[in-house]
Amino acid sequence: MYYVNPNIKDVVRIFPPQDRYGYLRLDMNENPEGLPQDFVDSVLKEFTPSFLATYPEPDIFMQKYADFVHVAPENICLTNGSDAAIRYTFEVFAAPGSSVVTVTPSFEMYGVNCNMLGLVHKPVPYSKDFTISVADIISAIDETTDIVALLNPNNPIGPNFTEAQARQVIDRANEVGAIVIFDEAYHYFCKDTFLLLINEYDNVIIFRTFSKLFSLAACRLGMVISNETIIEYLRKARPSFEVNALALKFAERILDHPAIFDELLSTFEAGKKHLIDSLEKHGYEYYPQSGNFIFIKPHIDANLLATNLMKEKILVKTYGNDLLKNYIRINIGAPKIMEQFMQALIKADTKEANQE
Amino acid sequence: MYYVNPNIKDVVRIFPPQDRYGYLRLDMNENPEGLPQDFVDSVLKEFTPSFLATYPEPDIFMQKYADFVHVAPENICLTNGSDAAIRYTFEVFAAPGSSVVTVTPSFEMYGVNCNMLGLVHKPVPYSKDFTISVADIISAIDETTDIVALLNPNNPIGPNFTEAQARQVIDRANEVGAIVIFDEAYHYFCKDTFLLLINEYDNVIIFRTFSKLFSLAACRLGMVISNETIIEYLRKARPSFEVNALALKFAERILDHPAIFDELLSTFEAGKKHLIDSLEKHGYEYYPQSGNFIFIKPHIDANLLATNLMKEKILVKTYGNDLLKNYIRINIGAPKIMEQFMQALIKADTKEANQE
Repeated sequence: MYYVNPNIKDVVRIFPPQDRYGYLRLDMNENPEGLPQDFVDSVLKEFTPSFLATYPEPDIFMQKYADFVHVAPENICLTNGSDAAIRYTFEVFAAPGSSVVTVTPSFEMYGVNCNMLGLVHKPVPYSKDFTISVADIISAIDETTDIVALLNPNNPIGPNFTEAQARQVIDRANEVGAIVIFDEAYHYFCKDTFLLLINEYDNVIIFRTFSKLFSLAACRLGMVISNETIIEYLRKARPSFEVNALALKFAERILDHPAIFDELLSTFEAGKKHLIDSLEKHGYEYYPQSGNFIFIKPHIDANLLATNLMKEKILVKTYGNDLLKNYIRINIGAPKIMEQFMQALIKADTKEANQE
Repeated sequence: MYYVNPNIKDVVRIFPPQDRYGYLRLDMNENPEGLPQDFVDSVLKEFTPSFLATYPEPDIFMQKYADFVHVAPENICLTNGSDAAIRYTFEVFAAPGSSVVTVTPSFEMYGVNCNMLGLVHKPVPYSKDFTISVADIISAIDETTDIVALLNPNNPIGPNFTEAQARQVIDRANEVGAIVIFDEAYHYFCKDTFLLLINEYDNVIIFRTFSKLFSLAACRLGMVISNETIIEYLRKARPSFEVNALALKFAERILDHPAIFDELLSTFEAGKKHLIDSLEKHGYEYYPQSGNFIFIKPHIDANLLATNLMKEKILVKTYGNDLLKNYIRINIGAPKIMEQFMQALIKADTKEANQE
């Protein structure tokens, strides 16, 4: 019988939901509306038959993105979404059997990649009041730790870490020879960043993505930003053609048009304001987050509400764990989308709605 | 100091060429023309802002592709190009330190993935007459072997393996508990396939791609086809969103339009005939292959010819190794493209051309 990697044999994977087209998608922190139609139309004209048949060339986008975030191209490694960034970083910088410190709840793929790669996952839990102790994170880092991975802001809950807290974590990681990942998937929704720390410390890695504010989740484009040494290792760990040419072209054209970026951000901010005003008006308990998502405490069971909202063709996220089981999480969209959600919420968030 | 995976530290990677747009690309086995323009236009209409912002959903394409190749969806694992298929297959089915038997020369990423993953690469060389001994391949398989990987047809050289030869290799692999990969990237150019062998043996894996005949190299879509057990392991070894939604949509629409498939194939066949007729007429020594590529022996040094052809805005492939250093390899395109190449070849394949 052939060999099977025991880590893969044992890993439990939950595959993403399907059939989400046709719903108002508020469950996966996407932008429900996406990019402006005329911008999309203009980029699609560049997708000629010859372009589609040619292997991807990342260099032009790399230079533009480097300029955009004020680093050199040598500080950037593109990946097939952040999912792939996690995997390559773990494969390169975590010895088999070493430990990875994260918080919980957080983006599930950190834990899944630990299991896939035979690493010991050490998740530090949030408190019931949705706060987390940086002292607990630092205590979890020990001689077995090769990687500390923190989302800033964390998804699904968590205030941002301060720069002082980030430095404490980095210093402790340095003591034990560990890398620190700051996953900034939700950057731009939140202005804080630890990007500049890559110049001060040799063990800091930043993740960014084009799936969130940039509204290209379909395309799969993630970026790792770090010092040249770390980036060179990560580039060597990737397949030859990691990111498809269509993602690269869309991303390049967004960077060419700063007005698109401004429009995405101002639409988001207007939508967030509209949603919070409406939640306040209707007396909802909610937790505004620094990402593109908000927790809302419904009057009825959260899973029941999610079922009711599906009947209204709206998808929202619910959780099984004790900390979050009484909430739904939705991502923020344009004001008109938030209004559509609020009207559906008011209708669906009653016991009667279920009995119809 | 942080840990660095020693395999990645030591691996030597050659990154793909850039700035190939604007050239007639005959160097990387792409389709230089690509898909029909009106077909591309019709698919691009489906790339709405909302579509682009939504995480990919592979299930609809999976069912259609399964029907297309007459297997079940459970027999298919989609990957971000064949590059990623090689990596996941090696990660799952090759124990650290085990050996991987291939032929040489062949697709470079098999050897590179061995180095990246700490596997022992055992390449079996072609003879000077461009033949290979299946007995040598079988002899190379021993108790250390976890994977045997054969391209059928091989790239860059090699006649196809016969089904009897394939069975000999599979039987020997079975004796030592090894998996056999048949990489059929160049299927359809060559009608032979070992796909049906997945039903007879538990250790056979087929790779296919949409980069070659299907003309979507920019999009990154590879397929692994095998028994349900192997596919389940491979699916567990991938990131959550492995293939982008744009690749899935293009591929789905090709399958919806069998006339597109027929057109791609008949254009290729007409181009191949035109090229071979022209090479014969001009007295060129050539090796017709079963893929979408041909070796041509120029009158002048092969690297010099490649330089001359670049001045004519044409890219061709040359090789450093002894076996192939006197040849150029080009991929086949439509008859008018092959005519453009022949005219440039006749002009460039002289010592005088270089002195201009």
